[in-house]
Amino acid sequence: MAVLVVGSIALDSLETPFGQRNDVPGGSATFFSTAASFFAPVQLVGVVGEDFPEEHVAFLKSRGIDTTGLTRAAGKTFRWKGRYGFDLNEAHTLDTQLNVFGEFRPELPAAFRNPELLFLGNIHPELQGLVLDQVEKRPRLVGMDTMNFWISGSREALLKTLARVDMLFVNDAEARQLAGEHNVVKAARAILSMGPSRLVIKRGEYGALLFDKEHVFAAPAYPLEDVFDPTGAGDSFAGGFMGWLARRGDLSVGTLRQACVAGSTLASFCVEKFSLDRFKELDEAQIRERLASFKALTHFEEVPATL
Amino acid sequence: MAVLVVGSIALDSLETPFGQRNDVPGGSATFFSTAASFFAPVQLVGVVGEDFPEEHVAFLKSRGIDTTGLTRAAGKTFRWKGRYGFDLNEAHTLDTQLNVFGEFRPELPAAFRNPELLFLGNIHPELQGLVLDQVEKRPRLVGMDTMNFWISGSREALLKTLARVDMLFVNDAEARQLAGEHNVVKAARAILSMGPSRLVIKRGEYGALLFDKEHVFAAPAYPLEDVFDPTGAGDSFAGGFMGWLARRGDLSVGTLRQACVAGSTLASFCVEKFSLDRFKELDEAQIRERLASFKALTHFEEVPATL
Repeated sequence: MAVLVVGSIALDSLETPFGQRNDVPGGSATFFSTAASFFAPVQLVGVVGEDFPEEHVAFLKSRGIDTTGLTRAAGKTFRWKGRYGFDLNEAHTLDTQLNVFGEFRPELPAAFRNPELLFLGNIHPELQGLVLDQVEKRPRLVGMDTMNFWISGSREALLKTLARVDMLFVNDAEARQLAGEHNVVKAARAILSMGPSRLVIKRGEYGALLFDKEHVFAAPAYPLEDVFDPTGAGDSFAGGFMGWLARRGDLSVGTLRQACVAGSTLASFCVEKFSLDRFKELDEAQIRERLASFKALTHFEEVPATL
Repeated sequence: MAVLVVGSIALDSLETPFGQRNDVPGGSATFFSTAASFFAPVQLVGVVGEDFPEEHVAFLKSRGIDTTGLTRAAGKTFRWKGRYGFDLNEAHTLDTQLNVFGEFRPELPAAFRNPELLFLGNIHPELQGLVLDQVEKRPRLVGMDTMNFWISGSREALLKTLARVDMLFVNDAEARQLAGEHNVVKAARAILSMGPSRLVIKRGEYGALLFDKEHVFAAPAYPLEDVFDPTGAGDSFAGGFMGWLARRGDLSVGTLRQACVAGSTLASFCVEKFSLDRFKELDEAQIRERLASFKALTHFEEVPATL
């Protein structure tokens, strides 16, 4: 199976307690597609400006990502500037310049209109809906991301799109806000009544919860000694998750759980260096080793029935 | 095996978004001993005032807890008053009256001086050391708890006691403060160089991490729909943990991991009602069922070596 992703492509400028970088590749589609590419073929739809360095496109292509849907528009690339303190769980946005992304109207190339797996990155929910309109046959699974900005500002449009997808990826604050419910289990149940049959609640360094109507699965985050830059962790999680589904080719409960661990694995690599830097030196053996570490991290012997 | 616990016994007054209670039983030794009593025999050392209702002592006895070491002193019982908002992860202390607990000098009854497992609840580190002085033979495992107040105010005494114990139970903020290190993995490594060979970092609704020098184990918290009162969750975790070790009678890596799950299980029951109320109606079948749920919550099939 292949995965199609539609989302943002950005040039990020980042300040963390460990250093700073200017105009490095970022954006939901960038992180998602790179992470997913370690498991499966990926098709990417997004827009960049005239100033987007060709080397970043070349890197995506070197990962086997199909960039037919990557448009270069007149103007500047979307720019995001953010700062993290020692509590790397929270980004402080210093500046956002939408530039060409402000006029982005996603258009699927003809060859992209029958995706088996589709991921709608965090863009305006109406644009996410527009992508769904262009798909010729219902994908086997549609995942989407969103954020507080759309939850509060475009709630109606968001609910409309949400009713058309199979799976939502949000962080816990977003889940609470969307559901209007503080308790995370109740919030999950409320969201599962809005359309999607599956939900991932991302909790940063605390891991992720995967819900369907009958099951909950808890995956920890990999305990890392060095977290340099959390930017893109959530999209790398989603990319690893959906890439895993594509690689395995089934959507069983067991495969979805493994996908959650695969997502945590890719997210854990993402944050070890700035931007895509860690992915540039990542190989399958390292991924396999960390996947195995997750088993070691969470495994315990079942308690005998007699206690 | 049996477990000996030395710690506080209090009358708590609590305000949560879901209701309020006045002068209900609380304190580290109370929660610890009750939780541990579901798995093993428990000996308790602590002090109450003349006003401590006999019915609470009777409840501890009804759980099989040996209260020979429970002293009734002239004066009033230790009182703590706290408030929780919707973010139940954090308690806001409204009032603390040490009363008879301010003069507490723990004395082990003769029959308590050879414990196999010993837990030093959160009291002044010098008093924790005083307990260790009274033990005739090195216990198989000594666990201790502490808090920000001692970490900042009695650091030297704390480090001295820490060097004498096998295992520390703290929350993540305390671990960071004690180690002077924000990253939790680095903080754990620093603490393991201070004496204890094992460390549990409690993370509230996000679960717990168990470290030794070679391994890390991540246990999630049980995803609950109704959390009424988090008071005592940490001590119930430690009680479930050490009670489990006593029940199984060994200190292998595998048993310690199960103990972590047993601790999370008891903590999850603790918070479902105020004070000890949930423990009053808890039975072994319910515990067994939730232990099994933890397996279902965290289990995933190992990824094949070929990915």
